[in-house]
Amino acid sequence: MTTFGVMEKFSAVAAIKNEAIREFLAELIGTFVLVMMGNCAVAQVVMAEGGSFLSINMGYAVAVTLGVMVSGGVSGGHINPAVSVALAVFGKFPWAKVPIFIVAQYTGAFLGAFMVFLVYRNALDAFDPGRTLASAGIFATYPGSVVNSTGEVVDNFLYSGNGMADQVVGTAMLLLCVCAITDPRNMGIPKPMIPAAVGTVVLGIGLSLGLNCGYAINPARDLGPRLFTLVAGWGAEPFTAMTADGVTWWWIPVVGPHLGLRGRMVFLSKLDNGSLKTHV
Amino acid sequence: MTTFGVMEKFSAVAAIKNEAIREFLAELIGTFVLVMMGNCAVAQVVMAEGGSFLSINMGYAVAVTLGVMVSGGVSGGHINPAVSVALAVFGKFPWAKVPIFIVAQYTGAFLGAFMVFLVYRNALDAFDPGRTLASAGIFATYPGSVVNSTGEVVDNFLYSGNGMADQVVGTAMLLLCVCAITDPRNMGIPKPMIPAAVGTVVLGIGLSLGLNCGYAINPARDLGPRLFTLVAGWGAEPFTAMTADGVTWWWIPVVGPHLGLRGRMVFLSKLDNGSLKTHV
Amino acid sequence: MTTFGVMEKFSAVAAIKNEAIREFLAELIGTFVLVMMGNCAVAQVVMAEGGSFLSINMGYAVAVTLGVMVSGGVSGGHINPAVSVALAVFGKFPWAKVPIFIVAQYTGAFLGAFMVFLVYRNALDAFDPGRTLASAGIFATYPGSVVNSTGEVVDNFLYSGNGMADQVVGTAMLLLCVCAITDPRNMGIPKPMIPAAVGTVVLGIGLSLGLNCGYAINPARDLGPRLFTLVAGWGAEPFTAMTADGVTWWWIPVVGPHLGLRGRMVFLSKLDNGSLKTHV
Amino acid sequence: MTTFGVMEKFSAVAAIKNEAIREFLAELIGTFVLVMMGNCAVAQVVMAEGGSFLSINMGYAVAVTLGVMVSGGVSGGHINPAVSVALAVFGKFPWAKVPIFIVAQYTGAFLGAFMVFLVYRNALDAFDPGRTLASAGIFATYPGSVVNSTGEVVDNFLYSGNGMADQVVGTAMLLLCVCAITDPRNMGIPKPMIPAAVGTVVLGIGLSLGLNCGYAINPARDLGPRLFTLVAGWGAEPFTAMTADGVTWWWIPVVGPHLGLRGRMVFLSKLDNGSLKTHV
Repeated sequence: MTTFGVMEKFSAVAAIKNEAIREFLAELIGTFVLVMMGNCAVAQVVMAEGGSFLSINMGYAVAVTLGVMVSGGVSGGHINPAVSVALAVFGKFPWAKVPIFIVAQYTGAFLGAFMVFLVYRNALDAFDPGRTLASAGIFATYPGSVVNSTGEVVDNFLYSGNGMADQVVGTAMLLLCVCAITDPRNMGIPKPMIPAAVGTVVLGIGLSLGLNCGYAINPARDLGPRLFTLVAGWGAEPFTAMTADGVTWWWIPVVGPHLGLRGRMVFLSKLDNGSLKTHV
Repeated sequence: MTTFGVMEKFSAVAAIKNEAIREFLAELIGTFVLVMMGNCAVAQVVMAEGGSFLSINMGYAVAVTLGVMVSGGVSGGHINPAVSVALAVFGKFPWAKVPIFIVAQYTGAFLGAFMVFLVYRNALDAFDPGRTLASAGIFATYPGSVVNSTGEVVDNFLYSGNGMADQVVGTAMLLLCVCAITDPRNMGIPKPMIPAAVGTVVLGIGLSLGLNCGYAINPARDLGPRLFTLVAGWGAEPFTAMTADGVTWWWIPVVGPHLGLRGRMVFLSKLDNGSLKTHV
Repeated sequence: MTTFGVMEKFSAVAAIKNEAIREFLAELIGTFVLVMMGNCAVAQVVMAEGGSFLSINMGYAVAVTLGVMVSGGVSGGHINPAVSVALAVFGKFPWAKVPIFIVAQYTGAFLGAFMVFLVYRNALDAFDPGRTLASAGIFATYPGSVVNSTGEVVDNFLYSGNGMADQVVGTAMLLLCVCAITDPRNMGIPKPMIPAAVGTVVLGIGLSLGLNCGYAINPARDLGPRLFTLVAGWGAEPFTAMTADGVTWWWIPVVGPHLGLRGRMVFLSKLDNGSLKTHV
Repeated sequence: MTTFGVMEKFSAVAAIKNEAIREFLAELIGTFVLVMMGNCAVAQVVMAEGGSFLSINMGYAVAVTLGVMVSGGVSGGHINPAVSVALAVFGKFPWAKVPIFIVAQYTGAFLGAFMVFLVYRNALDAFDPGRTLASAGIFATYPGSVVNSTGEVVDNFLYSGNGMADQVVGTAMLLLCVCAITDPRNMGIPKPMIPAAVGTVVLGIGLSLGLNCGYAINPARDLGPRLFTLVAGWGAEPFTAMTADGVTWWWIPVVGPHLGLRGRMVFLSKLDNGSLKTHV
């Protein structure tokens, strides 16, 4: 091999490596923006007087929009391991890149949670100096509560099966809508509108599926910040919290979103077969 | 007829059948998304602490946007029998397809309600284990209540005539605005913007006409989930609930939206005649 | 003159007449949509449990968007006498059409208020059977109230001068932003985006200038419904309500918006002169 | 030099001067719109019954959108000294124009605050006749309060370091997202969508970073109105208010946003270097 050939090869490898680094950084920053802005929106409502759940839903919707906006041009703006894996399964994304994207997403989510902590450190000290689940809910999701028709709060109503169903259905809705948005044969949504369209999907999921357990629908968004609380003073509770039937909670928003993919596929199998080669 | 001719005919028939199946599935899935996301948004506000009616309005607006987004490319995204019939009356949609679309819409709405039940099963058990109207209102619409100037709640204020007027006017507004949005001679709204534009119309109707009886303005969205509650443990009450003047409620949000079409036509007769061949 | 010439002339006159009729109807329907949807949004918040002012602001923003959407293609979507007069003063709209537009706008606003009454008749009977200012505020604007730092409600704080300033400034902001939106040398907002952009301006004005006296910024939107309440059972009070300094209120939201035009001109005189022939 | 040459030079100088005047006025009016509408939105929530922080966030988001809309075509719509300086540092804006822009921005913000005072004069007299910090918070930002898990309000929780971090991070987020929006190699956001996109960024920052100290992220927006309160009857308190550790507050939202630029640069240094010549 000539020197020139070696250099050419090296330069090609360097280009590939550069592209991989840039995509890694894009997914990392996109997920960082998502988690930092989204979790800060939760923090603001939890620690303020008279905050409303609607603010959290709008905050997370904007966070997704901006996360996709920041990363979209370089990496496509997955910012969610469930999306990367689903696209690989559908044959629209190379499997080889999946591990790189997932590491970037978890890293970005962890760093985003760290930034939430830095920005709201004094507030956290005033709100919950003992670092209990009261403030852990700012970072990761936990089973929620309902108020029954006679006005009593029922705190631990969610069973593991229902929690898993919630995550599967939520992510199936996300994937169904994102596929409809990005399918060029459908409504022809132009690239500049995609971040806001995906944000709108998450707004809808937050407004409708937030009650059970806070709509993680993204393993990195949930496990990354949960790991952060583990190492930053919240103890083991983030990983020992349970559903009403005594099942550990933390793995459900990690596994559920990946099953959402299957939910979508069952759902659309009739439309996706060979004779019906179009979207929906 | 030659074998080739038979095959060609068969293939043409198959193509038509395929198109019909795809449109059926698109309307089914679109209405499913509409009802599932919209009714889950109602569920979340009804069963949570401090939910606001604004969240329901925004939730249903996003649900309509995504329902149209998911189905629009294949079926045009009617997801409402009143829209399909109105377009057929206006000569913009073949009557032959109307029954297929309507069956798809009612089926999707029923399945959407079933999914709401599955996703919020534990919450419903905690909120209203007896399955009363307190939770039936998550699925279908019922006459509402007002608070008078001295602060008392007046529960059963709506008469049948006013309820019917509400549904006629609401659907007339919907059709008027949807026609203005999709009229190519008007503002030229491009296809990718139509789902959000239609969602904005429903946001406006929800913010303005939600007080009387929850703005069904879509027979499938209301009767489908009502039928679901009938078979899923709520008893006969969903079909025996009455207005203030003792008229059964359930058929009003089914018939009213179809009369909304007439409302629109009277309204615009002056503009739609031959000498004024333009939109508005 | 030959028969042909007569017919040609007649046909030209008929075409002009037709255009005038169509523009009249477009402005009427656009203002009808604006007032009906906007005032119903007020009705819903005033008569419901736990309604929020934000819902009114969003409702009126959507109402403006849809009012412009419905009428824009035919008449340009002024739906506000202050806009029609301002555009005539700026030389962008023929003075001859101003009276036609204004009559259409006031008629549409009156009919819109009538429709609010029809749709919410039962609710109004339950909420305020005596037809007092408690429900008159659904239709037209009145001076508002503030809550002072110690929590007391101060009901009649607004003086006539401040009320007039509010209407002048609000309409000046509206005109400034609408001119910036429609100026082709500025950001190049395409026609399909204009209704939503104008709605966004009204959202901003509602969120910021709603406290003093409910941001009429449109003489037809205020006087039309006020006249309706006069004839529909609210007595003379809509026209005798006063500011804190004993000045009759009703004419201020009629005159103020027309002065807003002057506000805008003073504001931008430096930019609008010959040597600076560009927008802003 | 010939007469002709002199005149040509003069005319060129005049053109430059004209452009400078127009840009000055555009930045002044844009910042005026931003501060007037945004601060009026704060005023409305602070002085009304049952206002919500969400209204402030939406009001400021619309205010930014309209401020950029009004000025964008002439000056590019910086309306924030931190943006002008950052663009100069990145080599995208001439340093020579920076002082002109900054003077315009501070002047516009001061005049905007004056207009808030004029429009809400009567309301301010009713709400806070003594002109205390209760109403000063309408104009400039101050350290906020949190409610701890047992329901007590903790009023002075914010330390100077955390406050500075808040302003640096908030502005870094703003600059990161604005650069992603305007980068032509990224999602290709067209010019007419930019004002709303920037408004969305500020909505997200308001929803997530509003709790500590009200997200100034713009030295002109904060110092301009603070100077106004100094001269308009609020005394020296706007400049003597302190953080929990006894550091004077006023300079932090002035210096912090300019450091946000550095925050962004550190953040993206890996992506911005020569071998990775693309956005993110």
